[in-house]
Amino acid sequence: MAKIIDGKALAKKTNDDTKQMVNELHSLGIKPCLAVILVGDDQASARYVRNKHKKAEQLGIESIVNHLPKETTQAELLKVVNEYNDDDAINGILVQSPLPKHIDEQLITRTIKPEKDVDGFHPVNVGNLFLNEPKNYPVACTPKGVMAMFAEYNIDLTGKKAVVIGRSSIVGRPMAALLINANATVTVLNHYSQDAKSYIKEADVVVAATGKLHMVSGADLKVGATVIDVGQNLNEAGKLVGDVDYESAEKVAGYITPVPGGVGPMTIAILMRQTVELASWSAKND
Amino acid sequence: MAKIIDGKALAKKTNDDTKQMVNELHSLGIKPCLAVILVGDDQASARYVRNKHKKAEQLGIESIVNHLPKETTQAELLKVVNEYNDDDAINGILVQSPLPKHIDEQLITRTIKPEKDVDGFHPVNVGNLFLNEPKNYPVACTPKGVMAMFAEYNIDLTGKKAVVIGRSSIVGRPMAALLINANATVTVLNHYSQDAKSYIKEADVVVAATGKLHMVSGADLKVGATVIDVGQNLNEAGKLVGDVDYESAEKVAGYITPVPGGVGPMTIAILMRQTVELASWSAKND
Repeated sequence: MAKIIDGKALAKKTNDDTKQMVNELHSLGIKPCLAVILVGDDQASARYVRNKHKKAEQLGIESIVNHLPKETTQAELLKVVNEYNDDDAINGILVQSPLPKHIDEQLITRTIKPEKDVDGFHPVNVGNLFLNEPKNYPVACTPKGVMAMFAEYNIDLTGKKAVVIGRSSIVGRPMAALLINANATVTVLNHYSQDAKSYIKEADVVVAATGKLHMVSGADLKVGATVIDVGQNLNEAGKLVGDVDYESAEKVAGYITPVPGGVGPMTIAILMRQTVELASWSAKND
Repeated sequence: MAKIIDGKALAKKTNDDTKQMVNELHSLGIKPCLAVILVGDDQASARYVRNKHKKAEQLGIESIVNHLPKETTQAELLKVVNEYNDDDAINGILVQSPLPKHIDEQLITRTIKPEKDVDGFHPVNVGNLFLNEPKNYPVACTPKGVMAMFAEYNIDLTGKKAVVIGRSSIVGRPMAALLINANATVTVLNHYSQDAKSYIKEADVVVAATGKLHMVSGADLKVGATVIDVGQNLNEAGKLVGDVDYESAEKVAGYITPVPGGVGPMTIAILMRQTVELASWSAKND
């Protein structure tokens, strides 16, 4: 039976640390502040934004939520982003995805100042990550949270075989970069991959990020592998499940993240932490 | 016996195309211009710069070579880079590596305007590449040249197993990104990798970029594999050789690049092509 990587517990620990960092910054007169922009009436997006706002308040992070109507034009949204870019009181800017179709999401991502890019999606930050630059920059929160899990559970990566299933901009690619930087041997699988299962079978670490149910089952895994499930899918019964067939996988894996209670809680904890890091880095550069 | 990927012939073909592109741009009143900055007296660097200058002139590309003394300060070099950034007549800026130790090379790389970054080394361009952005941006010339080889020889990459040996910023990492974007299954090996040989043995495409002699020999390869040798080493006899033991590898590989006459000539051809592309993209954005 695999050891469970408890994302909820690690998120709590991370949040406790973050709260302490916030207190220390407050004592220096620095008030970390996150601005979240929500455009339109998507229910799931509204819920995510509420959760972020609540969590920020719990941790003592100033939180601005700007809820704009779905008719907001691209020019209007750019104007808000640029105001926040210029506002020294704001350390992190997040524009909740997805945006209405009439707005170019990539343009918005690129307009956020790299040093306020709390999501780590700006190309210059992605470039820094992929080049393993030895400086401070934000990194996509989900894969950064996965790295925190490896650290917490002392999971060694150097020289180890890691397989990333999926190559999205927000999970697969930055995850691969982080693992390369951590000296793992990294293979990135995509839906064209031949012999995908043979890579998974040999892997010491499997990160599943495809958004497809039951992509990986216990029979696919090497005994003792670390299995990180980034998937968030609803199964036939309407229950939240990952990309991994947990029941069979936990019998073979050495470590495994559950869904829910694994990667999910860590993503928001890292978002909060990164807001505070941005505030701290910005203060150092003043 | 492997089919030889003739880098010299493809470089010639590429240069012929480039020359035609230059003529077309000239007829529109656009004169592509490359500015190369050389600091100090490194003999090899001076030779590279001379070769670039000569090639640019052959192709009708305006070429500025600014040879600065080795005592040049970082501030003085930054000033020159910024002058070139602001000079609309200059399309590509290249600062020859290595720089004297008192100059922060990464700072210089970041100071070059991304749209004049003919080497493709600026983090924002690397980020664009790693995110597979559907827009025009420069890419590191050596891996871009390798992709041109795959295209020329109709080497299919989709779903294929590609192994990149080495993870440097200028070859291994951008090569991996290009292969991921081309739908290959990409594994990046480093010197910590366990079972490195088992990955190489399974690979349809092997790109060796480690700077170590005889890293890969014929016995390591899958029959019919495509072998790209980015290495440029001097062997015991002082002869230029790659990272691959060519004699044994060509008996097993399906395609192979020789050293010299493989990747090397393509790198400079792509540098020239990219200068012209930058001029063309910049004209479109005016």
